[in-house]
Amino acid sequence: MGKRGEIDVKKQHGNQTVVFKSRPRVIGSFSIAGKKEGEGPLGSFINKIVSDDLDGEKTHEQAEQKLFESALAGAIKDAGIKDTDVDMLFAGDLLNQIISSSFTARGVDVSFIGVYGACSTMALSLALAASFVDAGHVTCAACIAGSHFATAERQYRTPLELGNQRSPLSQWTVTGAGSTIVTNTRPNTWKEAFSQRLAYDPDDCPRVAAATFGKVVDWGVKDVNNMGAAMAPAAAATMIAHFKDIGLKPGDNVEYPYDAIFTGDLGALGEQALRDIMKDAGYHLDDTYSDCGRLIFDKNQNAYQGGSGCGCAAITLNGFIMDKLRKKDYRRVLLVATGALLSPVSSYQGNTVPGIAHAIVLES
Amino acid sequence: MGKRGEIDVKKQHGNQTVVFKSRPRVIGSFSIAGKKEGEGPLGSFINKIVSDDLDGEKTHEQAEQKLFESALAGAIKDAGIKDTDVDMLFAGDLLNQIISSSFTARGVDVSFIGVYGACSTMALSLALAASFVDAGHVTCAACIAGSHFATAERQYRTPLELGNQRSPLSQWTVTGAGSTIVTNTRPNTWKEAFSQRLAYDPDDCPRVAAATFGKVVDWGVKDVNNMGAAMAPAAAATMIAHFKDIGLKPGDNVEYPYDAIFTGDLGALGEQALRDIMKDAGYHLDDTYSDCGRLIFDKNQNAYQGGSGCGCAAITLNGFIMDKLRKKDYRRVLLVATGALLSPVSSYQGNTVPGIAHAIVLES
Repeated sequence: MGKRGEIDVKKQHGNQTVVFKSRPRVIGSFSIAGKKEGEGPLGSFINKIVSDDLDGEKTHEQAEQKLFESALAGAIKDAGIKDTDVDMLFAGDLLNQIISSSFTARGVDVSFIGVYGACSTMALSLALAASFVDAGHVTCAACIAGSHFATAERQYRTPLELGNQRSPLSQWTVTGAGSTIVTNTRPNTWKEAFSQRLAYDPDDCPRVAAATFGKVVDWGVKDVNNMGAAMAPAAAATMIAHFKDIGLKPGDNVEYPYDAIFTGDLGALGEQALRDIMKDAGYHLDDTYSDCGRLIFDKNQNAYQGGSGCGCAAITLNGFIMDKLRKKDYRRVLLVATGALLSPVSSYQGNTVPGIAHAIVLES
Repeated sequence: MGKRGEIDVKKQHGNQTVVFKSRPRVIGSFSIAGKKEGEGPLGSFINKIVSDDLDGEKTHEQAEQKLFESALAGAIKDAGIKDTDVDMLFAGDLLNQIISSSFTARGVDVSFIGVYGACSTMALSLALAASFVDAGHVTCAACIAGSHFATAERQYRTPLELGNQRSPLSQWTVTGAGSTIVTNTRPNTWKEAFSQRLAYDPDDCPRVAAATFGKVVDWGVKDVNNMGAAMAPAAAATMIAHFKDIGLKPGDNVEYPYDAIFTGDLGALGEQALRDIMKDAGYHLDDTYSDCGRLIFDKNQNAYQGGSGCGCAAITLNGFIMDKLRKKDYRRVLLVATGALLSPVSSYQGNTVPGIAHAIVLES
């Protein structure tokens, strides 16, 4: 795997990885987040910081929707295109019936595919968008994922007004959203496809090289405050499936074809759990690997195990990672976004917490 | 459009319709539903009737999950394949965090794409599955959609135990699920792709010819009991987009290239609303058009405006429509499944009810 050219994946029946022949171009991206996220270690890479959790809205749900709208509008502007240039929007969030996504889609004249992958949504929606673009089903697709601390606390745990004590194993739902726009249009054909000149030379844009679609994995974790433990096995399963699909065998001296590998939002404890699971499977995750949830908040920010929520991977991807890809600091990145597929009802009824992880490969 | 060959759609930028070059084959399907649905006009086409709403489970949520598991297992058996032959599962339901789908996916060793399109989910998931198969991203994809009267009542309205009076405009959430399996494998290559002989000659299976992905439409309906009115404008928008994309112009004597056109679950009132909206747009919907929600229950079954829920289009498609396609009674069918994208929270906060509709074209 030393040669960093195209990833050579022979598509076989049963494989989870789709390699995109056209390597769809990321022509626009945008990240927006709250004050706390802005004060975190990745804050300087976030395109817009919203200082107030309500941001002028009457409810936190409407504030979350506004984050989604701003993220999409920002990515469209970043690409230098118009709303009407986007053919299809893939979006999802944590709220019941994904209202942040649906109500955002209401405001744009674009086909809408609602997805639910819990906190894996950024990778899931981008993987689907790239799949559609690569197939030629659409010319230009956008995706959005995000979350809001206050709406997630109320829906999954207790309203903030109660002032409940938090479990030391808990994570802090990120207030933020990210949006990415992909197209397969080549530089010489952009005039036919878009209404105006793109902001970036399409040949210079980051590319989506591949996606690995995860399976649901459940190791029996019942503690709804310990999402990292619930999701780490799913992250491992998808990572191993991905490595297997690209021909990377386990061993003491595995050389990863990535400058960086990220998981979505396992948090500090989950990151360590993943390292342990991967070690047992024969893959030693070295310094190239880190977790967005652990990175996004500083230890002094009282975020416990770190960030979580769809917004976590979304703002890390569309902020920090995209910046590094555009500057060519990263040549190839693997993002394994993770989701916990529980609901308050399933947990009340005594169910365990199934996890899922979807992975995307981005190249500069 | 008199000649009923391939639908001639020139893919243009901005169109909502994807025409599938490989016309993916429906190699398996299954429908399962409750007692009331079994006693309805389409009951004899449903593959399995469950006489008890709990079906031996402790909760209605778990009973709903069992419907999903049975639908998938039934479709896999119908196709004559094994679980391991399926590469990817697209599924969605009405429950918060789509737990029926996620927990069903936990039981199979297949990549899982969770979708949320409210009651449009059957068409949405099948459209995505066909898109992936057509692109060659996967060889075989399955999809499931369904709903349960008791879980939907509790989540969206009030628990059944309260015995609340129903609005005359309301619809009855269908207890049932449907599953469809699609592949692009040709008869001469099935041996490579599947572990055993398929149940049907792939050349003889119904085909997915095209899909039209809907936009979110909101005409300002706020009555959460009147879903038909909220969804009819979305159904009209997708139908008109579809007709436009395939080159069907409005006029007094529009000749539809379909033996039958169905909407998902507008109900009796919504069906009439759609006829009116379409008439205003210049399309006269004749007897070829009907609504699954109106068809599924008899007037004497106390279902008010008719059936609703993801299960409505799911069991009609995988029961009645698939039967007609297999018997070649239908040569080409358009199914426009409709969804209302509200949540109890969005309605409590004073929001209107946005609608969406996704359409698929099936051919025998």
